[in-house]
Amino acid sequence: MNNNSIINWIEFGNLSIPNILLSKYASLNMNEEELVMILQIFSFQQKGHTFPTPSQLAEIMSLNDQKCMEVIRQLLKKGLIEIVEQKDERNLRSEAYSLSPLWIKLIESTEEKQPSVELTNPIPSIIEQNEE
Amino acid sequence: MNNNSIINWIEFGNLSIPNILLSKYASLNMNEEELVMILQIFSFQQKGHTFPTPSQLAEIMSLNDQKCMEVIRQLLKKGLIEIVEQKDERNLRSEAYSLSPLWIKLIESTEEKQPSVELTNPIPSIIEQNEE
Amino acid sequence: MNNNSIINWIEFGNLSIPNILLSKYASLNMNEEELVMILQIFSFQQKGHTFPTPSQLAEIMSLNDQKCMEVIRQLLKKGLIEIVEQKDERNLRSEAYSLSPLWIKLIESTEEKQPSVELTNPIPSIIEQNEE
Amino acid sequence: MNNNSIINWIEFGNLSIPNILLSKYASLNMNEEELVMILQIFSFQQKGHTFPTPSQLAEIMSLNDQKCMEVIRQLLKKGLIEIVEQKDERNLRSEAYSLSPLWIKLIESTEEKQPSVELTNPIPSIIEQNEE
Repeated sequence: MNNNSIINWIEFGNLSIPNILLSKYASLNMNEEELVMILQIFSFQQKGHTFPTPSQLAEIMSLNDQKCMEVIRQLLKKGLIEIVEQKDERNLRSEAYSLSPLWIKLIESTEEKQPSVELTNPIPSIIEQNEE
Repeated sequence: MNNNSIINWIEFGNLSIPNILLSKYASLNMNEEELVMILQIFSFQQKGHTFPTPSQLAEIMSLNDQKCMEVIRQLLKKGLIEIVEQKDERNLRSEAYSLSPLWIKLIESTEEKQPSVELTNPIPSIIEQNEE
Repeated sequence: MNNNSIINWIEFGNLSIPNILLSKYASLNMNEEELVMILQIFSFQQKGHTFPTPSQLAEIMSLNDQKCMEVIRQLLKKGLIEIVEQKDERNLRSEAYSLSPLWIKLIESTEEKQPSVELTNPIPSIIEQNEE
Repeated sequence: MNNNSIINWIEFGNLSIPNILLSKYASLNMNEEELVMILQIFSFQQKGHTFPTPSQLAEIMSLNDQKCMEVIRQLLKKGLIEIVEQKDERNLRSEAYSLSPLWIKLIESTEEKQPSVELTNPIPSIIEQNEE
């Protein structure tokens, strides 16, 4: 292993996935294949590619094209993703996967769990003491 | 450089910071020292440490304790952070920095910029064709 | 949806996963269940919990305890994870999952793909011009 | 605040920054302006834009063009970044900032801190017991 391989590693970058997605997907009735499909679509989206084909997805998954399409259909039927129409700068229309329904379900699933915090005075004593 | 150092690198992990924070802090009237202070507080928060002291912050910044306190005071005065009271499981009270005011300002700053998308039918033709 | 739920969302944080893992797991002969198991173990690790039990994993996956154990056994047999012994500050021994074998395989898989870059002079003209 | 603003927030995405960078930049003799400059260059890099101009940087920082150039010059002089020549697919040459020198210094700074772990047998008892 050499420096270049590590530099490459760093420059390929990371995908930030919400901790809530990892800990709640099962309670939203998703299985592991559906979760990974979501991650792949999200990853394409972050790179500006909003409508990957089943075969582009199959290339980086352990599933074949047919199975990828099936998983996408399941996600659409469960109301976790949807297909929307986009217009680009030149007013050209194209289709895009939207993960909004999933994000909304996940945000709603956190609504019960608000930690009880109370606002204290804005400039606390520890900091005020040092002001003269 | 050896394998161990790269493994360490990966296991130290990453902090995910919202792209919006990086591109909008200046328009919220923050300077670079204030931004890095926010990142450090957020990083402590993610590790479960909600009220780092000025000297803990000074240890990992180029600023001394006094200057750290001053930057925190500026952030409090600008209404970007606040100090809240928390109760833990055993009902003990403690203070914590809250970044909520900053997050709310940042979310509001994105409200003008919604891409116009329209929902098309949920099961698109390209996928339907393959169902039999 | 209210402010609190979004603040909660942000504070739950994100897990940063290497893009290389998402695009190469299938070529390392992993399936989607194995990938998600890796992500869950990595997520526990980032929170300082290095040896989650099968039933802790089953709680946040679509798999039951038995199936979780089976997936972990597959990952051990494939040489993608290993179990190591750790000593903490008080010299107490405990077991931990190590993802090092996986990270090493992934780093090696990037070694062919180095972009060819050449170093130019360190202070480029565009910047030098502005110095007087 | 409405759903759209949160969805926008999520879709704008995050930048994953190595925890090591946040905790070690000061010991590499960087100040907060230099750290934020690194983060901005890294962020542009992740979006495929490898040579942002001082004025593009000034637009999203609290510094003006002149000051941005000065900070970049400092980073070049300190040997933390360099300017390299890239060739694209059509063999066109262009300049790019490389953060490699910084990554290498950071990786080296972790080399002393390897946790002592020992490999135990690959299939541990807790898991073996359940196999029949």
